[in-house]
Amino acid sequence: MRFTKMQGAGNDYIYVNGFQENIKNPERLAIELSDRHFGVGSDGLVIILPSKRCDFKMRMFNPDGSEAEMCGNASRCIGKYVYDKGLTDKKEITLETKAGIKKLKFTVTKNKVKNVCVDMGEPIISPSLIPVSKIGDSIIGEPFSVGDEQYKITCISMGNPHTVIFLESFDNIDLHQTGYSIEHHPLFPQRTNVEFAIIESKNNIRMRVWERGTGETLACGTGACATLVAAVLNGFAERKAVLHLLGGDLLIEWNDLDNHIYMTGDAITVFEGETVDRF
Amino acid sequence: MRFTKMQGAGNDYIYVNGFQENIKNPERLAIELSDRHFGVGSDGLVIILPSKRCDFKMRMFNPDGSEAEMCGNASRCIGKYVYDKGLTDKKEITLETKAGIKKLKFTVTKNKVKNVCVDMGEPIISPSLIPVSKIGDSIIGEPFSVGDEQYKITCISMGNPHTVIFLESFDNIDLHQTGYSIEHHPLFPQRTNVEFAIIESKNNIRMRVWERGTGETLACGTGACATLVAAVLNGFAERKAVLHLLGGDLLIEWNDLDNHIYMTGDAITVFEGETVDRF
Repeated sequence: MRFTKMQGAGNDYIYVNGFQENIKNPERLAIELSDRHFGVGSDGLVIILPSKRCDFKMRMFNPDGSEAEMCGNASRCIGKYVYDKGLTDKKEITLETKAGIKKLKFTVTKNKVKNVCVDMGEPIISPSLIPVSKIGDSIIGEPFSVGDEQYKITCISMGNPHTVIFLESFDNIDLHQTGYSIEHHPLFPQRTNVEFAIIESKNNIRMRVWERGTGETLACGTGACATLVAAVLNGFAERKAVLHLLGGDLLIEWNDLDNHIYMTGDAITVFEGETVDRF
Repeated sequence: MRFTKMQGAGNDYIYVNGFQENIKNPERLAIELSDRHFGVGSDGLVIILPSKRCDFKMRMFNPDGSEAEMCGNASRCIGKYVYDKGLTDKKEITLETKAGIKKLKFTVTKNKVKNVCVDMGEPIISPSLIPVSKIGDSIIGEPFSVGDEQYKITCISMGNPHTVIFLESFDNIDLHQTGYSIEHHPLFPQRTNVEFAIIESKNNIRMRVWERGTGETLACGTGACATLVAAVLNGFAERKAVLHLLGGDLLIEWNDLDNHIYMTGDAITVFEGETVDRF
């Protein structure tokens, strides 16, 4: 089976052309291929398929074989894949995902996609919808204690729940312990992702991500969007800023006309591959 | 650049044909390619080259760019690489490594190498040569305490130092803590690898490996050899046994004619690849 390994902000997936390859058991394949010692190694398997409603359809499988809804960083790579390989000549496409239809817009240099902008939809701030077990219209910079520590939290959903904490520095935080404790706090009935962020300027935010069920990761697209929204709501940043994550930079804009979040970042093709032997 | 990803007992390396590819800076390439999110992902880079003294020469680079001496699991993969790709039609070859000349012998099925037997040389049991800071001819089943725990240790060098401990089960051992403590114990001036082993029968040994400077790994060829030697010296096993590691099984034989250790195991080609963009 032919595949392409790509990464966006350090989120690395195996991309397969579902127009050409007939994959009978994507769940098992995702488990086998994602293994970093015995397989290809990845954060998961993405299959690009024809769609009746959109230009393309994506299906995405986690390393444990479960089907994922979507991933902003992976959707950028799909944009690069379909344009660079000539599956489309459009610079704006629609993508059918399990989390709804996503719109992608390409910046093209020398006939290759350099950056992709993804419409990530509208942020949700209502506690009951995020969900957070608290009465009120929003949770913006509210005091919150975990263990002996006091923080101020801002809660946002981008389709998945995020809790954002602004810090002066990362020096005095045990990301693993604090992230885990907040993720599992009774305030969050579906648990929560946790973002720790430092405001460097009105347009530059440094951040680290604790992903629900995973731990610290190099990057999280929805986490970066939630962090920008939280920074705006707290008056710390403008509506357009660069978010600096461990895996790379993302430009996030909260558009004031349509209330949508637009995420722009690069997408890299690392290598082309073809499996041998047991796959 | 074209490459082949292979694994032996879970040790996964990127193999490059140095007859065809001209690699100018293998140290930097190893660092970039070994990265499991931004690169191909591997335990290191192996380059197969012409040799004046042997059939082939291997150079091996760790993920940090340092040059490694050799690896039994990687040398098996080289055997499969050169035979399967038609670089040789011999079923016994010599391989020049930084740790001396290694002899490989192939078991071929349907014109492909299935197993490779590697002559790992003679074990060293003299404490001064391993090295262990202790007077005497050998250290076989000697009492040793670390923290509050009492163990019996057997010390062997296979070119690198190993300390083997036989247990009834892995249930009550904190591999990380005990492995780290023994590795850094003052008895071992160059530190030591640590093997924890359970004798299942005279010909079957289950083991886990704590690698010096790395931590627990899926497999260690020299560690498996040292464990078989330790088991024989303690009267626990015969001279030929299957060692069951997390990454797979290895058949180890301590030949009583030439005193050499022979390690036989499989070698798997996982995928063929070609790097794109920045490499």
